[in-house]
Amino acid sequence: MDSDRFQRGQATLSSIHGHIGEGVMKALGDIAPEFARFIIEFPYGDIYARGILSPRERQIATISSLVTLGHSPKELRAHIQGGLNVGCSRQDIVEVIMQMAVYAGFPAAVNALLVAKEVFAELDERGQQAAETGRP
Amino acid sequence: MDSDRFQRGQATLSSIHGHIGEGVMKALGDIAPEFARFIIEFPYGDIYARGILSPRERQIATISSLVTLGHSPKELRAHIQGGLNVGCSRQDIVEVIMQMAVYAGFPAAVNALLVAKEVFAELDERGQQAAETGRP
Amino acid sequence: MDSDRFQRGQATLSSIHGHIGEGVMKALGDIAPEFARFIIEFPYGDIYARGILSPRERQIATISSLVTLGHSPKELRAHIQGGLNVGCSRQDIVEVIMQMAVYAGFPAAVNALLVAKEVFAELDERGQQAAETGRP
Amino acid sequence: MDSDRFQRGQATLSSIHGHIGEGVMKALGDIAPEFARFIIEFPYGDIYARGILSPRERQIATISSLVTLGHSPKELRAHIQGGLNVGCSRQDIVEVIMQMAVYAGFPAAVNALLVAKEVFAELDERGQQAAETGRP
Amino acid sequence: MDSDRFQRGQATLSSIHGHIGEGVMKALGDIAPEFARFIIEFPYGDIYARGILSPRERQIATISSLVTLGHSPKELRAHIQGGLNVGCSRQDIVEVIMQMAVYAGFPAAVNALLVAKEVFAELDERGQQAAETGRP
Amino acid sequence: MDSDRFQRGQATLSSIHGHIGEGVMKALGDIAPEFARFIIEFPYGDIYARGILSPRERQIATISSLVTLGHSPKELRAHIQGGLNVGCSRQDIVEVIMQMAVYAGFPAAVNALLVAKEVFAELDERGQQAAETGRP
Repeated sequence: MDSDRFQRGQATLSSIHGHIGEGVMKALGDIAPEFARFIIEFPYGDIYARGILSPRERQIATISSLVTLGHSPKELRAHIQGGLNVGCSRQDIVEVIMQMAVYAGFPAAVNALLVAKEVFAELDERGQQAAETGRP
Repeated sequence: MDSDRFQRGQATLSSIHGHIGEGVMKALGDIAPEFARFIIEFPYGDIYARGILSPRERQIATISSLVTLGHSPKELRAHIQGGLNVGCSRQDIVEVIMQMAVYAGFPAAVNALLVAKEVFAELDERGQQAAETGRP
Repeated sequence: MDSDRFQRGQATLSSIHGHIGEGVMKALGDIAPEFARFIIEFPYGDIYARGILSPRERQIATISSLVTLGHSPKELRAHIQGGLNVGCSRQDIVEVIMQMAVYAGFPAAVNALLVAKEVFAELDERGQQAAETGRP
Repeated sequence: MDSDRFQRGQATLSSIHGHIGEGVMKALGDIAPEFARFIIEFPYGDIYARGILSPRERQIATISSLVTLGHSPKELRAHIQGGLNVGCSRQDIVEVIMQMAVYAGFPAAVNALLVAKEVFAELDERGQQAAETGRP
Repeated sequence: MDSDRFQRGQATLSSIHGHIGEGVMKALGDIAPEFARFIIEFPYGDIYARGILSPRERQIATISSLVTLGHSPKELRAHIQGGLNVGCSRQDIVEVIMQMAVYAGFPAAVNALLVAKEVFAELDERGQQAAETGRP
Repeated sequence: MDSDRFQRGQATLSSIHGHIGEGVMKALGDIAPEFARFIIEFPYGDIYARGILSPRERQIATISSLVTLGHSPKELRAHIQGGLNVGCSRQDIVEVIMQMAVYAGFPAAVNALLVAKEVFAELDERGQQAAETGRP
């Protein structure tokens, strides 16, 4: 095992996805533990950790790709949340998805906007609960 | 015809693609003049002109989508050139394409890097010629 | 706002999708009101309203594309219903989807046939209820 | 070999593609003769020959799918030509492709319009030559 | 009807999918009985029954394609089960899906691994129940 | 740099693609040297070198995916050649591609068969030349 890449990958994964990323890795770990490790090492340890582009720009790129693929709403949801975590505003994310109508077609963009709407609604609800209970 | 959208679209198109964009519109105009107008009005007049994201961020989004689609090397070429025109460095563009290996697969990324290589080589050659002839 | 395109788009949207189209636009309007407007103006106001092809032929084209994309069962459902609204028979729609097995593969066609089956079953159920209650 | 399906398929293939279809089958026959037979039997013998939809409507469906796939310009070219052979006008074909911008994105539609432009130009050239030589 | 192809197809379908395949054919039969027959005759009667590749190799090919398409998790589930039925181990299937990360991207591979995880868990649960009740 | 993964990757790459693989890596190295290294380390060092599946089975999986993607004829060509190098017969490769008609559609399969035909013709020509000149 290549511990530098793994540690760098874990740090990058956490900075984008927080605890949710750990959950996905654990779910994968049951069936394909080495693949869970590869995800941490290659996308997060080798690619996202390279600098050059800002974390915000990297999420714009990823969201654009996921909207275009169209077949991965769960990953899209994770990277919309990730985008918000690294400095994209909600409006930024809506803009990126709208632009994808031009390249990936309107259905792909509409589906992605409805995913974003769900993510934003959950955040509002959690914020509402936190305000009521005094806990974040 | 909706002249505001059209004029705004033409200005945006020029700011990204320069004279090359006009050539594509003219080629399309022979067969589908209204579609050439729609392209200027909707993607360039309605979407790219919205602000919120920077022109550089919008090219990152578009390049990501075109690498993911995989079937449009000419449009990819145009937007790599467009990215350079609005403030992306060559290294930025290479980074965006490399990141796409994670989402769209390695063959899509390799093909796109070879397109970028061609664009950069043509620019170098033109720069070389300009240096030799003293004309830009 | 370009009120001619918008009004023409709303009329075309209603003629294809009835009240259901309005619901989708409202759901989108919460998160991206301008995108909801773009959908009415561009696909419905600029494209579907052009004539030349009949509304029935346009739904055949759209259903073919949505079966091929494979990632948008909700839009497919809306356009199967839309096809029935503008003069396609159930058998026509089944034929279009079957033909897509040749181009988009059998899994895409099978999935689409199961979507069509659901649409047809809902219509039968509503017809049944209307017969029992005397209300349409 | 199932000679009914094969004969029906050959007749349908000829009615859509004329002699060009035979050329493709021959090119395939060198490497995969049974696959060439399957193409005649299944898409042309089983699907296109079913009636219910008109030949024109079936070409609209196929062109829509091929524009959406984006990766098969040669097949698109063959079916644009096929569409003209079974009663689509050039304008019909341009309309179908334009509509695909909504579902498959603008790059897919632009590429397809440029393919159509080539097909139409070749037909014009052949018509010009026929007029000059007096041979069709 | 071509009874040789149909019978050969039914036997091949049963050898891969057991009773589950019959259920899908029945669900399709309600809406498109001839398409259900085409599926038995062409993919199963013409293609899978050809020999040359082993049933195991054919499932590896199919699983690779379904992971790459990304839009058909139900068919993927059926062919993961089918792969186990014709001699692939669970580990083989996990390996095929992992390799697809390289070509179809990580999200497509992650989604497919989670489908495989569900299939394996259901099998374990059924095995557990069988052990407890003494019935297979 | 992780020299174990790199060396293992280079050995695996050579065993599949011979000298041609080195050429691609060199072409990429000019524009994105770290990406060339990633390709050797991740797909070839981490994935293809895992065993469990035979090299022949891994090429079947890769060819299936590339036929399904449809947008990468050069990579398909490289892996058809690679398949022959690791023990697939020409007939095996034709069978895999034919099966893809079921999942990825006939145009994707036809295009891939024509790529295979070119690869086989080049090999025959080289064999012919070798026979005439006495050099392999």
